[in-house]
This record gives sequence, C-alpha cells and structure tokens, in this order.
Amino acid sequence: MIRLGARRLLKVSARTGFSFRFASTSFTNDKNLNAIYTKVDELEPKFIQRIKDAVKIPSVSSELERRPELFRMAEWLQKEAKGLDINLTAHDPGFQSPGVKLPPILVGNYPSVPLPEKKTILVYGHYDVQPANIEDGGWEADPFTVVEKPDGRLVARGITDDKGPVMGWLNAIEAYQAAGVELPVNVIFCIEGMEENGSEGLDEFIASEKAHELFKDVDAICISDNYWLGTKKPVLTYGLRGCSYYAITVEGPNTDLHSGVFGGTVCEPMTDLTQLLASLVKPAKDAYKIQVPGVAEMVAPVTDAERRVYEPIDYNLTDLADSLGGRDCSLHATKADTLMARWRMPALSIHGIEGAFAQPGAKTVIPAKVTAKISIRTVPNIAPSRLNELVTEYVHNQFGQLGTKSSVKVDVVHEGNWWVSDPNNWSFEAAKQATRAVWGVDPDLTREGGSIPVTLTFEKELQKPVLLLPMGRGDDGAHSTMEKLDKQNYIQGTKTLASYLYFAAKAKTDTN
Amino acid sequence: MIRLGARRLLKVSARTGFSFRFASTSFTNDKNLNAIYTKVDELEPKFIQRIKDAVKIPSVSSELERRPELFRMAEWLQKEAKGLDINLTAHDPGFQSPGVKLPPILVGNYPSVPLPEKKTILVYGHYDVQPANIEDGGWEADPFTVVEKPDGRLVARGITDDKGPVMGWLNAIEAYQAAGVELPVNVIFCIEGMEENGSEGLDEFIASEKAHELFKDVDAICISDNYWLGTKKPVLTYGLRGCSYYAITVEGPNTDLHSGVFGGTVCEPMTDLTQLLASLVKPAKDAYKIQVPGVAEMVAPVTDAERRVYEPIDYNLTDLADSLGGRDCSLHATKADTLMARWRMPALSIHGIEGAFAQPGAKTVIPAKVTAKISIRTVPNIAPSRLNELVTEYVHNQFGQLGTKSSVKVDVVHEGNWWVSDPNNWSFEAAKQATRAVWGVDPDLTREGGSIPVTLTFEKELQKPVLLLPMGRGDDGAHSTMEKLDKQNYIQGTKTLASYLYFAAKAKTDTN
Repeated sequence: MIRLGARRLLKVSARTGFSFRFASTSFTNDKNLNAIYTKVDELEPKFIQRIKDAVKIPSVSSELERRPELFRMAEWLQKEAKGLDINLTAHDPGFQSPGVKLPPILVGNYPSVPLPEKKTILVYGHYDVQPANIEDGGWEADPFTVVEKPDGRLVARGITDDKGPVMGWLNAIEAYQAAGVELPVNVIFCIEGMEENGSEGLDEFIASEKAHELFKDVDAICISDNYWLGTKKPVLTYGLRGCSYYAITVEGPNTDLHSGVFGGTVCEPMTDLTQLLASLVKPAKDAYKIQVPGVAEMVAPVTDAERRVYEPIDYNLTDLADSLGGRDCSLHATKADTLMARWRMPALSIHGIEGAFAQPGAKTVIPAKVTAKISIRTVPNIAPSRLNELVTEYVHNQFGQLGTKSSVKVDVVHEGNWWVSDPNNWSFEAAKQATRAVWGVDPDLTREGGSIPVTLTFEKELQKPVLLLPMGRGDDGAHSTMEKLDKQNYIQGTKTLASYLYFAAKAKTDTN
Repeated sequence: MIRLGARRLLKVSARTGFSFRFASTSFTNDKNLNAIYTKVDELEPKFIQRIKDAVKIPSVSSELERRPELFRMAEWLQKEAKGLDINLTAHDPGFQSPGVKLPPILVGNYPSVPLPEKKTILVYGHYDVQPANIEDGGWEADPFTVVEKPDGRLVARGITDDKGPVMGWLNAIEAYQAAGVELPVNVIFCIEGMEENGSEGLDEFIASEKAHELFKDVDAICISDNYWLGTKKPVLTYGLRGCSYYAITVEGPNTDLHSGVFGGTVCEPMTDLTQLLASLVKPAKDAYKIQVPGVAEMVAPVTDAERRVYEPIDYNLTDLADSLGGRDCSLHATKADTLMARWRMPALSIHGIEGAFAQPGAKTVIPAKVTAKISIRTVPNIAPSRLNELVTEYVHNQFGQLGTKSSVKVDVVHEGNWWVSDPNNWSFEAAKQATRAVWGVDPDLTREGGSIPVTLTFEKELQKPVLLLPMGRGDDGAHSTMEKLDKQNYIQGTKTLASYLYFAAKAKTDTN
C-alpha cells in the first residue's frame, strides 16, 4: 500500500512490519520545502533535546499537588517560543475551585504582526499530560525522562499526547527560520493546560469576546492531538463520534441491608439494575445492537460507495488484536465492519456501577442505591437531545416491567456531539499534499471512535474548517504506561506540520 | 399477643409500641429464681457499670491498628471474671498473618472444678466488635462510651453485639452468688475475639484435641449472639440459612480500553456479565425466583402445618418497612410469605462488581476483567456442593449462549451450610421455661436469614444440641451506627440467661 518514491531506504522493522528509514528524504521537488526538510534533519539533535526538556516537567493536570508544574510548564513553553520570536500570552481562565487556579491558555501570533495578505492558521495543542508514576508499575524508568529505545521509540509520559506535536509546531517554525524561508501563512498558537482534565475553561475562553477578537482572521484550525489508525500509514482525520454519558440510578431501601436477614424479602436495587442494563443491548452474537427503539433509525445509512472506502485503509484485525494485548476479542469478522463499528455506528458501553460492593473479597451486602454509568457513542445523524429522550423513556418502560418497588432515575452526565468534516476541503487538500511530500503516500482518510470536544468548539465558534493532523502512531499508548512517540514520527511529523502550513498558503479556499 | 402476668406495669412506649416496665417482677413462684431476680434488680447499677466498662475498650477485630485493644479486652474480661471466681484461660490461636497475632480464645469452667453429677452447659460469646468512628457520622457521641437515652436505650458500639450478652452471663453468675443459690449446672465459657472478622482460628480450636478434651462433658451449647425478630417478644432461634458465595469473572481484552476507540468493535466483559447476571433470577414481580435449574427442587416443600406456624409470630410488614428506613420495598404481600422467604427459602443477591468503574464521576472505560460477587442463601435440603455444581454449569451454559469471545470463570468464595435444630429438645424447653418465668410469654420460635457459622461447628464437633438464645431486639442495629441495647433487655436478658441454666439443670435430656 505504500508507494515507493525516490531516495528512501526500505527496511524491515520487526516491530511494525515495513517502515521507512529516511535520510534527508523527501517526495517533493519544491526547493523551499526541501530546504526546510534539510534543516529539520540537521536540527534533529536540538529537536530531540527540546522534547526531552518538555517532557521533564511533570505537568499533570488532574493531580492538584502537581498544579505548580502546569504553571512551570507554561512558563517553559513561553520561554522556548520566545527564543523563536513567538510571543505567547498567558490568558487566565480563572479558578478550578476555591484557591485552585486553572493553568493559563497560551495564545500568540507568529509573526507577531500578522500580514493581512496571508492566510491565518490556528494551531491547537496542550501542554498538560496524563498522570504517571513509576510506582504504578509498567514503566521501565522514570516516566518523565525520555528513554530512547534502539528501535527508535522515545518513551515518556506525554511525549505523543501532546508534547510531541506541540514541539513539532515550534520545530517547524524554527526550520523555516533556519532555512531562510518566509512562513507563507500567519500562525496563531492556542495551547491549553487542562486537556486531560476536561479542558476546563477552554470552551468559555474560545467563546469569549476576547478570543473572537484574537481569532477573527483565522481561516482554518489544525489540531494535532490524535493518532494514525495503525502503525504504518499517515492519516488525516475528518470525523469523530460523540459521546452521551448517562447515570442510571436504582434506589430501594434507605440503607444498605444484610443479605442474610433481608435476602428474599425485599426488592434489591442491584438485581433490578442488572436486569435493566441487560435490556439495553442485544448479546455479543448480535453485536450488542442497541435495543432502545428509535436509535438505529437516526443513524445515517451506509451506502455501497461508502462501504468501498474502508477496504483500502491500512488496518486489519491483527491490529485490533494487538491493541487488546494479543487476544482476539473482535466483534466483527471483517475490517470494513470493524471500522464502520468504530467510526460511524453507535455503541453502548457499561462502564461500571457506583454504590455496590466493588472491593476485593466477599461482603454480603444488599446495596440500597446503585448507579450504573453507561455511555452511547453517537454518530451522524443522531441528535443528542432526542437520544436523551429515547434512552430515558426506554429505561422507564423497561423498569416498569420488572414489577419492583425500587425507583429509577436517568441523569444525563454529559453529551458531546459527533463531528464530521468534508475531507476534500482546501485545508484537507493541503494536508494531503504535505503528507505526500513528506511520506510519499496519500494519507488514509479516517474517523475516530472517540471525541475531541475542542474540535466542535472551534468549528462552532470560528465557523472555519477544522483539520485533525496526527503526528503519532496508533500504538503510541497515550494514557497508558510506556507511552511513546517514534523518533521517525517526531521528525517526519515536524516536516508534515511545516509542509501543511506551506500548502495551506497555496490552497484555493474557494474549493471549500 | 403478650399474655399479662401479675405484678407488672404496662406502659405505652412511643418507640416500640407496648412494652413492659418491670419492678422486681417475675412470672414464676420459684423461690430460688425469685431470689436471683431480686439480686439482678439490686445489682442493676453494678451491671450497667460493667457493660460501660466493657464497651469502653474499642476491641475492633478488623482494624489492625486496634489489635492491641483486643488483647486489652481479653485481659479486662479475665480480670472481671476472676472477680467472680471464673478462671478464663487464654488459648492462643496463632497468627493471622506474619507478625499479626490472633487474639486469645478465652475458655474457663465455673465452678473451676466441675461437678460430675451436674449437666455442663457451654456458653459462647465474643468480645470483639465491629468498627466505629464518630467521624463516620451517624453517631451522636463517641461510640465507645455508653449513652443512656431517656427511653431506656444504651447506645454504644458492641453493646448488643456481643458485649451485652457476654456481660449477661457474668451478671447471671454474680446473681446466683449474691442470692446464695448454688449454680445447678457446670458452665464452660468459650469467648472469642475474632467473630466480626470471620472467627479466624476458632473452628480449628474447637476441632482440636485440646478443645475436645476441654469440652468432653458438654451437654448443650447456648449461644447468645442474635436478636429477637421484632421489638416486643422474646424468641428462641432454631434455624439459620446457609450462604454460598460466588465470584463470577468475565475476562476479555488484556487491558482496559477506551470506549471511544473500541466501543462497538470488541466484546465487552461488563456487558456480557450484565446479561449473565440478569439470567440468574426472574424479575421482582416473580420474587427473584432463582433460575438455576435444580435449585428449587432441593428446597424442602412447605406443608400446610408449617404454614400455620408463621401466623402467630410477632412480626408484620410494618416491622420490615421500619428496617428499611420507612420505605416499602417488600417483595411479598403477607407476613407468612415474608417470613418463609427470610427463613426457609433460598435467595440470590448480587452484591457488586469488582474491576469496573465504581467511583463517582464519569469515566469512559471498557473494563478488561470484571468479577461479580453473588451469594445464594441456602435452606434445607440444599446440598452446598451440589449447588456449586448447578450454579457453575448454569453460568457456563448461559454464557455460551451470548456468543461472546470473553471467557467466564466461577469461583466458590465460601460456603456455610444451613442449620436447623429441633425446637422442642430439652435445651429449647429449658429456654422456653426461662422465657416464661422472666417475660411471662411463650417465646416465638424463629429462624434467621443469616448464618452464625460457629453454631454448625459446635454441633458438628461436640454432637450436642445448640440453642440460640438472644438478648437484644430486632432493631438494635448491630453493625450499624447508633447500635443499642435496651436496658430492659440487658437486665431481663440477664435473668433469662440465669433462668436457662436453672431450667436446663432440671430438664430431662432423654426427651432430646
């Protein structure tokens, strides 16, 4: 599937099958781009040091005791950008809770005085990371120190999510400067520090008058905070599923009961809830089809043309099994069905039950009040508000049939809408050109099963096209132990970001 | 339902409906017993002080940091008994875990040289208590200081479970001594300190050669570690349900997954488990009938004669609702059905799920491995080993029908057999006489829904009749906050224990 270009060395990698080894390689004859690529390769040691320095600060946004590290990280980032003449201004989103300040949202123009004749690209990233402690096990060394593996992996917390891409943007600007090529677009950076903790404060900021003023000239938004589908082929992402999260609470007696004394004589909320949950989806043999009437009817039908889109994509069921630790737990027999199930079909998951006995050991309790946490991944054309109505009505109907004296309640915990873009708009076309120039292949056009809520926020508030342009691979293990970014992806990814800006400048926006 | 005797004052209690207020009252003309009862009343202030002192030591067996308190409690008990010429020897059951000693099992004869012509009654109790901290909320004051309420309640952790009854036995001996009445039986005390933590070490001790030698002359065992069914009428307990506890584990991928990325493409253990659990019992409208084939067939049929036994018992559905905090969660419409469901019918409860998301908040995880904890309360004539086979087979059959690639495993966590005694044997007859003498009523003959495993151990090892003779009321709230023992039950209960020994001596054992 990978088209061979000139001047590349093909080698077999035991880890990922075929992959490229690049030696100042490019698939373009553009003089400027080639000069930039050469500088990226020359600056590789500096860029590696940059990501090492960035990773060193444990900027974990979900642990309050590490909150000062977020501010340290923001300052480090401002200093690093300043060295490239990028002035990042810290915007204060206020307090997370009394006494707990939210970390700043960093916003800055490059060049500092935008040129009105050029397009303006907003690039988004985040400088906070998921928690990690060597004591948790799974890490071979301190997670906040980059370990370079012989196979090219750079292992550290936050390296692919999202410090690698953020450094990639800085690297790209530096390469332009080093190559003496004028940046053909205006760039606005928007880098937040709460992404791993619900992006608290960001939506309000983007919707604020201040941000509307700051972002008024933006022509497109580019987000590099997701991953290739597999490990071998670059992708551009044009769709995300939404997520509607529900808490279903069943309540019976006013207090937990002893099952010896009361078992058999009272309505048991946990038993009622179990039966309710079982009625939400069909069994695995029917692919957990959602049983809530009206949901399937809202899903956009699959056309024959669409079905053909999935076949060429670099993905197979072995990739899925690899993600599951080598176990075959696949629900579908074909790649196309699997990708459709991940990208464009709704799915209901039961995450757990609050209020019941969840510890190791044995306890003979009848819990008085139990709350199931479930979510439905949503796709075109499911309307979240209608889904809430349908789920609530169905739950009450099913519960009514149980004949229990327990009560039931459905709460909508949160809802994030799905997102689908036109993968042939000028911004995507620029990214396709960039991918071909750097990697020598057409990117796969993919969607994601998960959600990246800021995508919708930018689209809604700025009314401009959003592109998801990932740097890392599908096996990077963001949020897991031994998170990694391949050096190849970091360096070629830097070139890809630089090239996207280059081709975006040339693109005809009226094709949007 | 309460037969009125002579010399008692009837008063209306706002808390429990009708109850008696005794003023040196008895329902017997036996000179010795009346002398003993008079002494109990005279000694009431001393007995109240004794329970206050006993409660003061926070002998919590499940909290390692309080382990020294168990040893302090055992020493206090030995000293208190010594004052009554009862020599309690500390038997060391060994270690709970490396470095953690089990508290002693206290055993002693009274009189210290048993008289061979007298019957020997083994009385069992425990000096450890459930955890309690005022910080947990629910307690009006330090839980280890007795609070005397105007309505007669003595509130403190462990006061009814089981320090009240243990002090009751000491009080009874003291009353005999004070009244100058020779104890007509030999008593052997057996008081452990791990009852609230699985009675670790006790079964081994009772089964040991040493204990068989110590207990070789025992004619009956009397356990005072349970409660009246309701709040107004004394009971004797002749049956307990057993408990077979299972862990059902469903396992899929090797690691937890993100529901956005994987939802819809893989088998989800939590969904599979939910559907499996739902198939274990019918819905509430069918009284959660256990769906495992072969279980109902093992249950002893209800005869018409048996059905009539339940009607006169002091219990009604309001008592049940009171236990549930005032909410009507009853599964059955009549008292008889409710009592049968509690005492002589099996019941399956789902206690919770380990491995899934159980915290507050929202998390979009697909748990890789989830374990449901369920138990079945067993009754005559369910054979626990056969039940294990039936449950395991059914679970695997049902699971097979789901068509999932997840795997399932059933572990038997523990099994305790049910117990039923003859409520008309000589020991029960002695207890009935004692109840009539003190309370002026025939006790209700009840069974318990829960299990008291030591009951079975004593019966099996000593091959002698076991009697459960409770002191406290059904609303005492053992294991809960604001645990209490009514002063009336403490004082009259002391008389009842003393009277049981008195009538046991007179009983013809050949009626057993």
